Amino acid sequence: MESYKQFLVVLPLALALGFVAVAFALAWVLHFREGLGWDGGAAEFNWHPLLMVIGFIFLQGVAIVVYRLPWTWRCSKQMMKLIHAGLNILAFILAVISVVAVFDFHNAKNIPNMYSLHSWIGLATVILYPAQIVMGIAVYLIPATPVYVRAALMPVHIYSGLFIFTSVIATALMGITEKLIFSLKSPAYKESPPEAVLVNLLGLLIAAFGGLILWIATRPSWKRPREEITQGVSNNSSSPEGVKVGTAMTSRTEHESSLETRRRNGKAEESG
Amino acid sequence: MESYKQFLVVLPLALALGFVAVAFALAWVLHFREGLGWDGGAAEFNWHPLLMVIGFIFLQGVAIVVYRLPWTWRCSKQMMKLIHAGLNILAFILAVISVVAVFDFHNAKNIPNMYSLHSWIGLATVILYPAQIVMGIAVYLIPATPVYVRAALMPVHIYSGLFIFTSVIATALMGITEKLIFSLKSPAYKESPPEAVLVNLLGLLIAAFGGLILWIATRPSWKRPREEITQGVSNNSSSPEGVKVGTAMTSRTEHESSLETRRRNGKAEESG
Repeated sequence: MESYKQFLVVLPLALALGFVAVAFALAWVLHFREGLGWDGGAAEFNWHPLLMVIGFIFLQGVAIVVYRLPWTWRCSKQMMKLIHAGLNILAFILAVISVVAVFDFHNAKNIPNMYSLHSWIGLATVILYPAQIVMGIAVYLIPATPVYVRAALMPVHIYSGLFIFTSVIATALMGITEKLIFSLKSPAYKESPPEAVLVNLLGLLIAAFGGLILWIATRPSWKRPREEITQGVSNNSSSPEGVKVGTAMTSRTEHESSLETRRRNGKAEESG
Repeated sequence: MESYKQFLVVLPLALALGFVAVAFALAWVLHFREGLGWDGGAAEFNWHPLLMVIGFIFLQGVAIVVYRLPWTWRCSKQMMKLIHAGLNILAFILAVISVVAVFDFHNAKNIPNMYSLHSWIGLATVILYPAQIVMGIAVYLIPATPVYVRAALMPVHIYSGLFIFTSVIATALMGITEKLIFSLKSPAYKESPPEAVLVNLLGLLIAAFGGLILWIATRPSWKRPREEITQGVSNNSSSPEGVKVGTAMTSRTEHESSLETRRRNGKAEESG
């Protein structure tokens, strides 16, 4: 019960931080910068931070914790996998548009691409992310994949997902640093004009959002119960009725009981 | 057995990446920059990246995984806790010297302190880190702390330790970005001179080192066995003889067997 209450504080807090981060990114490009456009100029560049915050950070973060939402445990695992994959694919599409915007901007201004550490680690994440998505679909959505392969690769899938997410956030923090140094001239970044403070706060919001997502994702007691707990919920994609069948079986009380049991188990395990 | 072999690949790889990162940081400040000194000038600043890589990144990383080394399982838990705390305290001391160096440099050059996102998140880590150390000592080294308190706080201790470590690495990547933009003028950072390539590679090394440390720290099958497995090893700080008594009991074969058993358990748990 206590664990469930904590979840009901931490999840909305994470989402609120994510929303405020998106609002700060919007305020940055609309109020302090040149707005949004697609003309090879600064307004096109501005899609880069905005879409990265919306897609690669916020949507990816939501995709990571989507299995943890207790009110989705009545849905079939297959449906949740499709939502998880769908959110990640959407995040990837926004990331690609965001990268195209910055390449267009650089090319129009004769600025070299791919010289900075931001671009090196950023490109690595943009390559690793679709690899992670394709591996995830091949292993966990294609029914033919044997269960032992799914089990063997699950630790790798979880770790690499969280590693990519963390790398994206580190890349965003480097991007903020670069952009504020390059674009603030008079007053300069070091004079802490309002734009610098707002965008530094955006960086803190992103870091805090990432920290909460990682906390939610790594609590054993907040994991979706195994299928034997959500009795009647079908794990078969060809049986969407399973969702309805399962609804009555996974009441809130059961969630709480399950959360509480696993919280105690988790504690016992981690106290060694 | 397979798991133990993987550990024997991943651990030396992590340490090698850490050593090469320190070598790159040394090459940066000695070959490309002004060397090392304590005169308020650039040579004093150079202690900042060097000591951060040695202390706050490499030593903190080693401190995190020190319980994972199978050849330390014959040592008492109390001794390993002292080593863990000692390495973290050493890392903190180096981080403080490193911060003093950069404040001295800024003050001598009339550059404002604490305006950048790098400095904001960096200062947060330098405040959170000793708080984490003090909490760790109070909870896990002072014998009076009840076992249920130790157990209840262990997930927080682990998470906050890994969060601080990850934040330090993100801060280092921002610091590299800042320093290369500010210090490379002709040729500039965007022209990718050798120094820019070397220091970008330093950033990649740091990120890869961090990734491997997080992998090692989060494998359930690589955890130090509970005391009942290392029979004869005393968990009592007042019985150092326990270390010797335990030596013969925890042969490599037992480690492997223990690793293998827990690998299978870990898999079963994570395949849900």
